[in-house]
Amino acid sequence: MSSLEEKTLHSEEIFSGKVISLYLEDVELPNGNHSKREIIKHPGAVAILAVTDDNKIVMVEQYRKALERTIVEIPAGKLERGEKPEVCARRELEEETGYVCESLELLTSFYTSPGFADEIVHVFIAKGLTKKENSAALDEDEFVNLEELTLAEAIQYVKDQKIYDAKTAYAVQFLQLQEALGK
Amino acid sequence: MSSLEEKTLHSEEIFSGKVISLYLEDVELPNGNHSKREIIKHPGAVAILAVTDDNKIVMVEQYRKALERTIVEIPAGKLERGEKPEVCARRELEEETGYVCESLELLTSFYTSPGFADEIVHVFIAKGLTKKENSAALDEDEFVNLEELTLAEAIQYVKDQKIYDAKTAYAVQFLQLQEALGK
Repeated sequence: MSSLEEKTLHSEEIFSGKVISLYLEDVELPNGNHSKREIIKHPGAVAILAVTDDNKIVMVEQYRKALERTIVEIPAGKLERGEKPEVCARRELEEETGYVCESLELLTSFYTSPGFADEIVHVFIAKGLTKKENSAALDEDEFVNLEELTLAEAIQYVKDQKIYDAKTAYAVQFLQLQEALGK
Repeated sequence: MSSLEEKTLHSEEIFSGKVISLYLEDVELPNGNHSKREIIKHPGAVAILAVTDDNKIVMVEQYRKALERTIVEIPAGKLERGEKPEVCARRELEEETGYVCESLELLTSFYTSPGFADEIVHVFIAKGLTKKENSAALDEDEFVNLEELTLAEAIQYVKDQKIYDAKTAYAVQFLQLQEALGK
């Protein structure tokens, strides 16, 4: 098996923002040729598949400027600098939904767009949910509508493209698999 | 339900590359406050869950510069301008793996990183695979190792973080669900 590695010859920061940074890199390919790579750096994120005691999935509807539309997603948010994913997951769940959870378990982690970005999402499953009455407020710039869906409703939302993102599609399919396995 | 829409006040193109473009946008939030959004525009992509007649999943190992490592993924590629996803899926499958397929069916489509990017991936399932001996070469800048995995091997690859991206994690879970449903 030949080496597939691309060596960095030069890396230039084009943009550094609140959420992402953009680098333009000159690389040496395995055959010795040179090419350019456009790379987005992102701090990483968590997403929480939160299931209520009566088996509803807690979802948030929010406007996504990149898509110019609202979609319905499992609660999620960016990692703060140095923040552990589990701590971030509990914080984001409470901030976005007002729920605190008894149990929180990592389901999986995945890169969302490995072709151009290093964003990783850590997907947790949260159970034993309790609504906190005086829960922390949303970030000032964050506006969401809360929805609690049965699995059947979530599957319909996927078909209707109200649910339309990778992490939420994965989470809904995970619950379908658990149901099919009788778990 | 209140409107969640964010109105664009100003959009500035920061970078336009071969793969992505970056825009910095001033927006008006639902409460009238102003904020900034960092937006990546991407042409969209396809991914192909290709299953051989003996039930192996066709995977490609490739170096991902954004991650500085190789991962194992289902074949995928960017849409050319004006290209139909199905046409792109057949092209990418043949270019990356040498396989042509009899049947090709859209499983689902999802946005990969709705927080900052408009990249959408259309995931197809391909069956009736035949290896084309004189298949089109890979792009000059593309280097991949082909692997054919059983479902059990693919699940192990997810655990070992050799498979580590959203579309491939979704595809493996899809096959687990099909198996659990006895399909």
